[in-house]
Amino acid sequence: MPAAPRLPFDPIERASELWVEHIGESRSMRLATSIMRVQQLISSELDAALKPFGITFARYEVLQLISFSAAGRLPLSKIGERLMVHPTSVTNAMDRLETQGLVRRVADQTDRRRTFAELTDQGKHVLGQATDAVMAIDFAVVGLDDEQQDQAFELLKAVRSAAGDF
Amino acid sequence: MPAAPRLPFDPIERASELWVEHIGESRSMRLATSIMRVQQLISSELDAALKPFGITFARYEVLQLISFSAAGRLPLSKIGERLMVHPTSVTNAMDRLETQGLVRRVADQTDRRRTFAELTDQGKHVLGQATDAVMAIDFAVVGLDDEQQDQAFELLKAVRSAAGDF
Repeated sequence: MPAAPRLPFDPIERASELWVEHIGESRSMRLATSIMRVQQLISSELDAALKPFGITFARYEVLQLISFSAAGRLPLSKIGERLMVHPTSVTNAMDRLETQGLVRRVADQTDRRRTFAELTDQGKHVLGQATDAVMAIDFAVVGLDDEQQDQAFELLKAVRSAAGDF
Repeated sequence: MPAAPRLPFDPIERASELWVEHIGESRSMRLATSIMRVQQLISSELDAALKPFGITFARYEVLQLISFSAAGRLPLSKIGERLMVHPTSVTNAMDRLETQGLVRRVADQTDRRRTFAELTDQGKHVLGQATDAVMAIDFAVVGLDDEQQDQAFELLKAVRSAAGDF
């Protein structure tokens, strides 16, 4: 969904001023709103960069995670755990990726309840190109130098920790 | 979509280590991933807090913005501009809110192409309660003190500015 054109002022700062005027302290409101806005910007840029390869960033993450596994394959349950998404989301992503010929499901010979995900050769090829594409735009994280990126990461890590991610 | 249970390690730090091992510098990757994760956490908490009132955070923002207008009403086009969302999203949110009896559309007598949004009395009532609910959880921004919240806001503002929001 494309955003509205650039404004001559920061609409979040403006909302923050209005909040202070009508309601009170706006610190957490403006931060929450900023996080949502930056997520929209980043997601939309990453999805656009990956569009030539027919995948979204969510599916890119699945491919990348599988490629990182020492055995070249991962149980589906572990993919959900590591990407912090619901098993249904993993199933949907895997269905799409399998239809696209980028992954395959492999039954575990020792535990029939368990299924592994593996990359196909085409999956490895697309993943390499997709990685180049997202690195070329520096993961859409613009406007911050290295030190600021690290600061932002640590601040968000404190939120994730307090929210119970790990 | 509920997330997986808490892990004994930070999955984003782990992904970052794997990225360094297999690909190279992981700074922007881990920041982009963190932003997406924190947005999921915050959205899900805010939507849960607003569920008793039958609205999402996106619809809450529409109500709040209308309430801030000096005239008590806003042109639909301005709502999209200020919330940085596509006109279609505003139309959808307004349709839902109007069906719920929380807003009404009012034709502009001087410019027939323009439509205003106004809160109903019920809309004002629900907005007040919804505001109490999101403030009670501090907009789901947990784990950061005031100074850290301001730092995070400023860092994200630099991203928004560089991405062309204002």
